[in-house]
Amino acid sequence: MSEEFKTVWTEPLTEFCRKVFEKLGIPPQDALTTSEVLVLADLRGIDSHGVARLRRYYTGLKNGVMVPRPEIKVVHETPVTALIDGGAALGQVAGSRGMKLAIDKALKNGIGFVAVRNSNHYGIAGYYSLQALKHDLIGISLTNSDVYVVPTFSRQVMLGTNPISVTVPTLHEKPFVLDMSTAVATLGKMEVYSRMGKKIPLGWAVDEKGQSCDDPTRVISNIRSKAGGGILPMGGEGEEFGGHKGYGLDLLVDILSGALSGSGYLNLLYPKTPAGQPLPSLVGHFFGALRVDYFRPLEDFKKDMDDLIRRLKSSGKAEGQNRIYIHGEKEFELEEKYRKNGIPLYYKVYDDLKAIAGEVGVAFTL
Amino acid sequence: MSEEFKTVWTEPLTEFCRKVFEKLGIPPQDALTTSEVLVLADLRGIDSHGVARLRRYYTGLKNGVMVPRPEIKVVHETPVTALIDGGAALGQVAGSRGMKLAIDKALKNGIGFVAVRNSNHYGIAGYYSLQALKHDLIGISLTNSDVYVVPTFSRQVMLGTNPISVTVPTLHEKPFVLDMSTAVATLGKMEVYSRMGKKIPLGWAVDEKGQSCDDPTRVISNIRSKAGGGILPMGGEGEEFGGHKGYGLDLLVDILSGALSGSGYLNLLYPKTPAGQPLPSLVGHFFGALRVDYFRPLEDFKKDMDDLIRRLKSSGKAEGQNRIYIHGEKEFELEEKYRKNGIPLYYKVYDDLKAIAGEVGVAFTL
Repeated sequence: MSEEFKTVWTEPLTEFCRKVFEKLGIPPQDALTTSEVLVLADLRGIDSHGVARLRRYYTGLKNGVMVPRPEIKVVHETPVTALIDGGAALGQVAGSRGMKLAIDKALKNGIGFVAVRNSNHYGIAGYYSLQALKHDLIGISLTNSDVYVVPTFSRQVMLGTNPISVTVPTLHEKPFVLDMSTAVATLGKMEVYSRMGKKIPLGWAVDEKGQSCDDPTRVISNIRSKAGGGILPMGGEGEEFGGHKGYGLDLLVDILSGALSGSGYLNLLYPKTPAGQPLPSLVGHFFGALRVDYFRPLEDFKKDMDDLIRRLKSSGKAEGQNRIYIHGEKEFELEEKYRKNGIPLYYKVYDDLKAIAGEVGVAFTL
Repeated sequence: MSEEFKTVWTEPLTEFCRKVFEKLGIPPQDALTTSEVLVLADLRGIDSHGVARLRRYYTGLKNGVMVPRPEIKVVHETPVTALIDGGAALGQVAGSRGMKLAIDKALKNGIGFVAVRNSNHYGIAGYYSLQALKHDLIGISLTNSDVYVVPTFSRQVMLGTNPISVTVPTLHEKPFVLDMSTAVATLGKMEVYSRMGKKIPLGWAVDEKGQSCDDPTRVISNIRSKAGGGILPMGGEGEEFGGHKGYGLDLLVDILSGALSGSGYLNLLYPKTPAGQPLPSLVGHFFGALRVDYFRPLEDFKKDMDDLIRRLKSSGKAEGQNRIYIHGEKEFELEEKYRKNGIPLYYKVYDDLKAIAGEVGVAFTL
């Protein structure tokens, strides 16, 4: 492993995060859940959503955007749906509650859909949809998020990188775990290119005038200063490669997460006082769970899923390629490796965890 | 209107198709529904799925891939789900039945999901999801289709252009109508480039070795002869622009339409006898309908949808652009125009309709 990285282990890393969250006033079970969501992101190689974000939660809890002991309420409920008010909880806390309720309803009545309003950044979308697999359910997890994405033909960021995650159970094969942002690339990727002094591919972003831009530093700075321009939706610029479809999926996630829950949407997720003080946030989520046997016998379906996966994986490879992947496969392999050999954390992240330990008064033994 | 086109009118065109289908043994109501689905595609500018396809249905009905008087059965049913066996019906007939059942269940119990197996090409996905809007429901329509699409890192067509359509009601604004193929471009578009002798953009397709290809004629011929290569999923080649995400969405549609319904999936949609004779087809669909007021008051949501749409449309335009579109907007405008001024049909299509009229013995007065 490169010297850029410090190897840490799953259990002590989770335990460390848990203690930090407890020190910040989060109840023990919620602190554990939130820590598990963060560490799972690192284990699955989505380090932009892992413990590197601990400081943002720390800051959010300090400035009142996130509430440590929120009043989470089921506002409306039917046998197959619910609306939850997250009370500005940590997204992981409100999100887990929402997904659990969707699963409970699906187990009982075949389907469960739960919208969550007034929540916060919930980490990786896949954490929630993966819970459904423990019960052999199809799982769905959507959220809106801070606006980095420019609609087709616009020059203004109006949408988040709003992810879609859907999980589907299998028999012997690894389950299908789609967990994708609806943007063409992530801000984290732009930051990597920026640090390396590399240009980004045309089709990833537009500048403040809404024109194609290959300078990641300018794109990031424009997004931060709200000067105009930002990341493009999946499919890139204009309509030639289906950018309007990516924009449509991104918007659909916002509609289901933000508008259907009665929470914030578009650029209305993080309200402020007239004086510019942050107020509790209005992030929304949408969770779903579906019983397969409400359509056909579960075992038959799982056998078909295995067959489908095997057919895909054994289809003819493109010249120069030796493997066709199923969604989630790379992440499961990474998780297995990191659980065994430890998680490589950037020293920058490791040092920040150490600093947080000092600031909140938790022993740092990673 | 260019001389390439013959102008025809909505009602006589629908009436003509209906008579052709009746002559082919389709019961009156089914003949009407199927004709309406085809003509709506032309009205909304999706002419690849319009009356230009009449011959394919004619052929399908003659060779037994499609059954004119099918036994459509509800195989399994719960208050919120159902599985329908289409009995190799016209896709429009089995599809309408499926969507109607999903809507009925949603109106009664909040949610309805219906999987349909053993069906055929159902036309535009949006026809079905649009039905949900008549009841102020959120509508979902998915289908698998003949394989033209190559998974990421493969050189073999394994997936259809498997569309996703989702509709969302609004108050005064036009509703949100997403209706998108999960491929980066359609075969129809390749054919247009091929006819004009133009190269296609790199990122649309790969050749028989799975390498980037800008020759549409070669791509089309490869797909037809199953020589390898085909259209790329949304996001294009490899992972740089998110091709693996498009592949994931395409596959998800196949899982829900094909595997969850217990129908065909991947390249198993059109079985043949050992002697190469076509057998009844195994296309699958997946329909959903959702009551908004099972989450929050419908009027509040519809007001928010209007607000969301207005904010998007008034956001800053990219230099050189003067309009930001909402999904479905272009199609509604085209429909209004074509209903008023007539539908422009390619003479090639018009002449084929005339030929069909002669072959089946229906008066041709378009």
